This record gives sequence, C-alpha cells and structure tokens, in this order.
Amino acid sequence: MEGIFQNEIIKQILAKYRRIWAIGHAQSVLGWDMEVNMPKEGILERSVAQGELSVLSQEFLLKPDFVELVEKAKGIEDLNEYERGIVRVLDRSIRISKAFPPEFLRERSEVTSQATKAWEEAKKDDDYSKFEPWLDKIIDLAKRAAEYLGYEKEPYDALLDLFEEGLTTREVERMFEKLEKDLKPLLEKIMEEGKVPQSHILEKEKYEREQMERVNIWILQKFGFPLGVRARLDVSAHPFTTEFGIRDVRITTRYEGYDFRRTILSTVHEFGHALYELQQDDRFMFSPIAGGVSLGVHESQSRFWENIIGRSREFAELIYPILKENLPFMSGYTPEDVYLYFNIVRPDYIRTEADVVTYNFHILLRFKLERIMVSEEVKAKDLPELWNEEMERLLGIRPKTYREGILQDIHWAHGTIGYFPTYSIGTLLAAQLYYHVKRDIPDFEERIAKGDFEPIKAWLRERIHRWGSIYSPKELIKKAIGEDLNPEYFVKWVKERYL
Amino acid sequence: MEGIFQNEIIKQILAKYRRIWAIGHAQSVLGWDMEVNMPKEGILERSVAQGELSVLSQEFLLKPDFVELVEKAKGIEDLNEYERGIVRVLDRSIRISKAFPPEFLRERSEVTSQATKAWEEAKKDDDYSKFEPWLDKIIDLAKRAAEYLGYEKEPYDALLDLFEEGLTTREVERMFEKLEKDLKPLLEKIMEEGKVPQSHILEKEKYEREQMERVNIWILQKFGFPLGVRARLDVSAHPFTTEFGIRDVRITTRYEGYDFRRTILSTVHEFGHALYELQQDDRFMFSPIAGGVSLGVHESQSRFWENIIGRSREFAELIYPILKENLPFMSGYTPEDVYLYFNIVRPDYIRTEADVVTYNFHILLRFKLERIMVSEEVKAKDLPELWNEEMERLLGIRPKTYREGILQDIHWAHGTIGYFPTYSIGTLLAAQLYYHVKRDIPDFEERIAKGDFEPIKAWLRERIHRWGSIYSPKELIKKAIGEDLNPEYFVKWVKERYL
Repeated sequence: MEGIFQNEIIKQILAKYRRIWAIGHAQSVLGWDMEVNMPKEGILERSVAQGELSVLSQEFLLKPDFVELVEKAKGIEDLNEYERGIVRVLDRSIRISKAFPPEFLRERSEVTSQATKAWEEAKKDDDYSKFEPWLDKIIDLAKRAAEYLGYEKEPYDALLDLFEEGLTTREVERMFEKLEKDLKPLLEKIMEEGKVPQSHILEKEKYEREQMERVNIWILQKFGFPLGVRARLDVSAHPFTTEFGIRDVRITTRYEGYDFRRTILSTVHEFGHALYELQQDDRFMFSPIAGGVSLGVHESQSRFWENIIGRSREFAELIYPILKENLPFMSGYTPEDVYLYFNIVRPDYIRTEADVVTYNFHILLRFKLERIMVSEEVKAKDLPELWNEEMERLLGIRPKTYREGILQDIHWAHGTIGYFPTYSIGTLLAAQLYYHVKRDIPDFEERIAKGDFEPIKAWLRERIHRWGSIYSPKELIKKAIGEDLNPEYFVKWVKERYL
Repeated sequence: MEGIFQNEIIKQILAKYRRIWAIGHAQSVLGWDMEVNMPKEGILERSVAQGELSVLSQEFLLKPDFVELVEKAKGIEDLNEYERGIVRVLDRSIRISKAFPPEFLRERSEVTSQATKAWEEAKKDDDYSKFEPWLDKIIDLAKRAAEYLGYEKEPYDALLDLFEEGLTTREVERMFEKLEKDLKPLLEKIMEEGKVPQSHILEKEKYEREQMERVNIWILQKFGFPLGVRARLDVSAHPFTTEFGIRDVRITTRYEGYDFRRTILSTVHEFGHALYELQQDDRFMFSPIAGGVSLGVHESQSRFWENIIGRSREFAELIYPILKENLPFMSGYTPEDVYLYFNIVRPDYIRTEADVVTYNFHILLRFKLERIMVSEEVKAKDLPELWNEEMERLLGIRPKTYREGILQDIHWAHGTIGYFPTYSIGTLLAAQLYYHVKRDIPDFEERIAKGDFEPIKAWLRERIHRWGSIYSPKELIKKAIGEDLNPEYFVKWVKERYL
C-alpha cells in the first residue's frame, strides 16, 4: 500500500481496520456458501455464526480507540484523495452504526426474520392477511430507523441515504416526474408501432442446463471474465454477485430450463457487477475504499452490460453461432429473432421479469408507496389497493392476485425500505454512460459485434471502477462524465432503440 | 442445551464461547472453500483473512474474564461429565494458545497458506526446489512451537500432544518397534504365499468421472450419508473431511480416471470421519465438546470404514452390481476380482495408496524424519535423501521422483508436524474395534453383504461418536472397549485377512 497511504493516522486506522475487513471477508464467504452450497440443515449453525460475526464487526468499528482515530483524521488538512476517501467511508459507517441502539437492532433482526417466513407463507398461499401485521411492524421499524438516523426534510431521506449516499427524496421525485412524463407516451407509441414484439416464440423453447452453461461460459470468456483465476460462476436460486476482495469475485446464475434469455441476461448483468469489483485499484486491497461506492452506481454497471450491450443487435449477432451450436432449436431462428426476443416490451406484473421500458414504472410505484409508508399514517391494510391502483394508472394492468402484486418482492419482508430507487438510478445512469462511452469509442457497436470488449472495459475502469469508494456517488459521476445524473439520456436511448 | 449444562459458571462460559465458535465456523468454511472452490489468485486475501481470524480467536480465548471463568470452573466439585468435558477441552486450548505469541500465529498462518500453494506447484512440476525454502520455514516454525509449548523429554513430545492429547514420543516409538518386529516378517510371508496379489489388471482400467461419481453417491446413500441435508461430497486435490458444525459436514474425493479403487476407498474413508461428526449429541452444538476428540480416534473411524468394511469380501459383493452398471469393463470381472484388487499387498511409494500391511511403514518413516527435523540440525535439502534411504530399508524400494517421495503429502506444507503417527494409531485402533464390534454384532459380515449398516453405525455412535470430546482419547478408548490401544489386534487381523 506504499505510495497512496502516507499519513501516520491513516496507516494506524488501516492496521486496525484489517480485522474488520477479515470479518467482512468471512461474512461474504459464509453468505455465498449459504446460497450456493450449504446442505439445508446447516442453516441453524450458519445463522448463529453470521449473527455473531455481525455483532463482532460492529464492536470493532465502534471501539473507542478506532472511532477516536477516525475523528482525529477528519481534522487533518493535507490528506490525499485516497486518504480522504478512507475517512469519508469510515465516518459514514460509524455514524450509521452508532445511530441504532442494540435493542432496536435486535428487535429489527427478530421481526424481519419472522416477517420473511410470514411473507413466504403469504406468497405461497396468496394470502396477504398473513403478511399484513408484519408489514405494519416493518413500517414502524422503518419510521423509527429514520428518527434514529435523522433527516432534514422527511423521514424517507434518511432511508434513501442508507442505500445511496446523499440521495434525497426530492431528487428521486424529480427523476420519476420527468420519467413518467416522457416515458408514458413513449411506451404507448412503442406498443402501437410494434417495432419490437410483445412476445416471442423463443420464450417457450426448452433447454438443458449443460447447453446454457456452455453458452454462459463462452460469453464470459469473450468478456474476459477471469474464471478460475480471480472469478467463478455458480448456480443459486436468485442470481447475485459477491466479492471476497479484489481478486476473488463470484457471480451466480440460474437455469430454469426454458426462456434462455433469462439465464444469459442475468449472467451478463452479474458480470457487470463483478467487473466493477475486479477492476478496482489493487492498492485498495484490505481497505474500506475497495469495493463499489453505492448500490446505484453498482447497478449502473450491471445494467450497462445487460441493457446496453446484452440487448444490442450486435450482441445478438455475436452470440448467435454459439447459441446455434448448443441449442438445436436455434436453427429455425435468425440473429434478428434473438435480438427481438431480448427486446420484448410488454407491460406485466412482475418487476424482475420486466422489460427495459416498463421496468422504471415498477420502481416508481414502490417509491410512491414507501414514501407514504414512512411519512403518512398509512396502514399495511391499505397498501394492496394503492399498489393495484398505481399499477393500473402506470401500466394499464391490475394484478388479480397478491402474488403478482404487493407480495412479489422479498425486500420489505427483509425490512429494506429505501432500496428500490437505486435500481432506477442504475438503469438511467447506464444509458447516460452509453452516450459518453460513444464519444470516446465511436465504433462501440462494431466492437461488440467483433467481441472486442477491451476498450469498453478500459473506459469503465478509468472512469469508474478504479476509484472504488474514494468519492461519494455524486462526486464520482461528476468526475467520470462531467455532469450529474440526468434521466433524459435514458429517454433518448429508449427512443433510439425502440422507435 | 437445557439438561446437560446446569452449572451457572459453565453457562457463562458457553455464552462467551459462542463467538469463538463462530470464528471457528468461519475458519472452517474459508478453509474448505480454499481447497474446493477458490480461484487461484484469491490466495493472498484469503491468507490474510485466515491470519486475522486466527489471531482474533486466540484473543477471545485468552481474554482475562474468559480464562478466569475457566479457572473458576476447574475448582468446582460437582460438575457433571459434560461440564467437566467443557473445562478439560477449554483448559487445554487455553494452555496451548497461551503458549504461542500472536505474531507467531500470524506468521505461521500466512506461511502455511502460501507454502500450500508452493507445494502444489512443486508437486505438479516434480520440482522440490520450489517447496524446499518453505519447508525450512516450516521446520523452524515447528521447533519454535515445541519450545513455546514446552516438553518433558524431547521437542517432538510437544508436537505429538497437539494432535493426540497425551501421546508421547516414547509410546509411538514402542508401538512402531512392536509393529516393525511383527509386520516385517508377516509382509514377507504374505508376499511369498500369494493369497492376495501384488497387482491386479483392474488397476489399469479407465473410467469417466461421471461413472465413478454415480458409484460413490450410491455407496454413500447405502451408508445413509445425508447428502444435501447435512452433508456434501465435493472434489479436491487431496481428499479431506471438514465440519462446520454437527449439521453441515463435508467430504471430498478425487477422480483420477483410472484405478477406481482409489476414489471409492477415499470416499469410504472420509465417510468414516464424517460419520463421527454427524453422530455427535445434538446438545453439544456451539460448545467446545462438539467434534471428534483427537486425530487418532478420528482416524480409527475412517480406517474402520475403509479397511474393515471397504476392503471386506462382503463389501466387494455389495458394490459389484453398481460397479457393473457404471463401468462397462466390469462385465469381464467377478466380485472376487474386486475383493482381490482392493486387497493388493505391494510395497509402493505413495502412502495414500498404500495397502493396509505396508501402510504403517510409511508412517514409521515420517515419524523418524519428523523426530530428527525438530531435534537435530537437519535442513530441508537433506530430507529427500533421508526419505529415500529409509524407504529402501523398510520396503526395499527407492523413489525416483520427488512426487513419489517427499513431495507426496500435503501435511508439512500445512505446517503439521507430529500428525502422521495418528494415522497409525487410527489404523491399529480400527482393527481393535473390529474384534469388539464382532462380539456385539456376530453377523457383522452378513450385514455388510446386505448393505445393512445401521447396527454398525449405532454401535459406533453409542461407544464413540456421541461422546464428542467429553473424555480424553485414552479415557474414551478405555470406556468404549474396556482396554487400552493394543497393536496386537492389528497384527492378528492382518494374519487372518492375508494369510
């Protein structure tokens, strides 16, 4: 770490931080193993171990001598940008950790673990009444969390900041106002014009797991994903990315046996997350500035690879031969079919299966509900009706079951309120990045067609990845592209792609 | 845990022990992942994390309030046997941990983690020079460890006790004197009489990994191994067993593509280890008495399944149909061929592939080398020659490569010196247990032929497994079979089986 960390106080902080880093490394390995490998009855011992490690990590973060060093570092004038990043990240973690009394954390952990079980039951039986009392408790916990954290304007600000440093309700509101105004008529026009289909026969084609494994590995190799060297691809119920450090980053996918677009695009999506972690500056290793800066910026990377690259016509052409080689039914289809199949636009109930155009409406709906949950005297029993009305207003469809409505996501059962907007931030930022990449790499599409991703990866590394968490999300975006997040780029991209 | 832990001091100890348990759980998961999954460049971050966790665990074990509670508990008269077990195990751990300064532990953890990777390279390339400098470091670490621990007669005593509580160099020496005296002439006689062959054509038959995976899984299911529920079978360079608790126990095997006996017997061997962990008393969960008591007793369980059951004529009959189903070449062979093939006796280079009769000579060789490593001024560069000389004296053969000589085992790379003798203890104890099992289950062999392992598993559970680490190894053996470890049973068993 010679070279970038020079200040003595910072060096002391980093020496003490190593065990917090090590506990985090262990927590990540345990979490990954739980989703990928763990035999089912291992859950009791694994949960206890994870609980103990959380408490331990928190204790080390809040140890008086550690907090004092960070306080001291805040007063030092001549820190370099790396060192200032260390102080910003740790100060924020300490502030958040300190905010919650241990009794509150214990209560939240108990409520959410029971709420998750209740949600599973409720979803299985399509019976909202089983989840409703738990959701009331979770709303109450979220309100209290906001009070503990403090806020300037409204409680939801405090929750947003937890997931996206510095993000405010007002900013999200403005973003969605703009999107709703521009995107609603656009969606209607897309449906009318029919340049992309509302369904495709390829959705129904079945595949064997081994076939799609070969395809996914081929794609990841084209991307230069360092499988076996610094990375892995595994299988889990819900695809995710996890990093154990800069040199061991793992993604998962799933194989449902039909609708092969889902496994490809989820693999490409997780690759985008993984690349952000893999392309960090090696000198950040073991420090708190290693790792992506926020959920929104992280999601911009996954969406960039999924939407901008993975859904492009050139990508469909690139992967067509390997699809044909592995999926016998492909001989009846053209690369253009693959492209159209990857770009279906169709209002539907389930967020995780939504197309690129309707996706943001799903998030807008959740944002509206979450905001009133923590600001107004709204009860869980009123929420399904609010959900359905908003769905009808935005997408013209009304869920007939709770399962395809308010019970579809696990987030609220986990107690995470304020997280959803980061998905839209990522989606919008991905499109914005695209127009900036194009300025520097005018033959962007030709590169995709040739499978030459190195210049694109280098661009992302230089502008975003290598900086880890040094800068706040807003600063990073400004430094990377010289302007703030702007939803207009996404609207422009939708027009160009779908009209 | 109600019921078995009543004493208030013990309850306080166990509450504090939970985080030590959790760190141990994490260390095991990290270790398993390193051997089974980790992309190769993950090693640096993994080593640092393991080093930090070791130090952390040590710190919690040696915290004054914890040590004081254990000291207090040592003075309590009316503890039950479970509670006394807790005190014995923790007192021993504290004594051992206190002996090592934290810097030493950190150094050892980092050195061995990197030495392991160096050993893999060295073995792959048959290039001892890649491992030699690491082995010197490891010998130095072992000598320092012995000094830190203290000993009465010679440094090697201190290392032996680490792996087999209470075992001394003198005892091991006597055991091997007896064995060498009886087994050398026996081996010559076995070779002369030729009742079992010195080689078998089945050694050369090739298989596909998928074929043997199916066979191994079939065998494990016959044994009642709870795959996916409380257990896993994976692949690693060197087969091993690890437990993350009582309900998540994992074994590994390897597939070399020929000589299928090796993958079967290693799977059966590791199953024996796993069963010991799986059949613990559930009430020991999260406590220091959960887990097998010593390496020697553990090895007696794996050897019991490998040698007594896996190499029996009845086991060959039991698995013959599934072998025939999966290995096309098997139609040219009989169950008796399988039995003979599993019982080849032939002096050879590789310990892990050694037959039951020559196996102990491999251990004797390592015992002699380890003893001089830590007692005399011997350097890593002298060891290959010493190895080869001793091999020639004991088995009449001389290794032509490092791979079939000194580089064959992973143990020294792991920094484990003093471990090997526990293999012979296990081998001898397995034969001794066999004669005791036979008294209670006279139709032992018929049960194997029928694939009915429940009474055998129940016997092992009642006599050995369920007691975890409550008793010291010597006490446990005495309680289980009413006598001490005695090498004569093994000699008797070899005579009956091979002459």
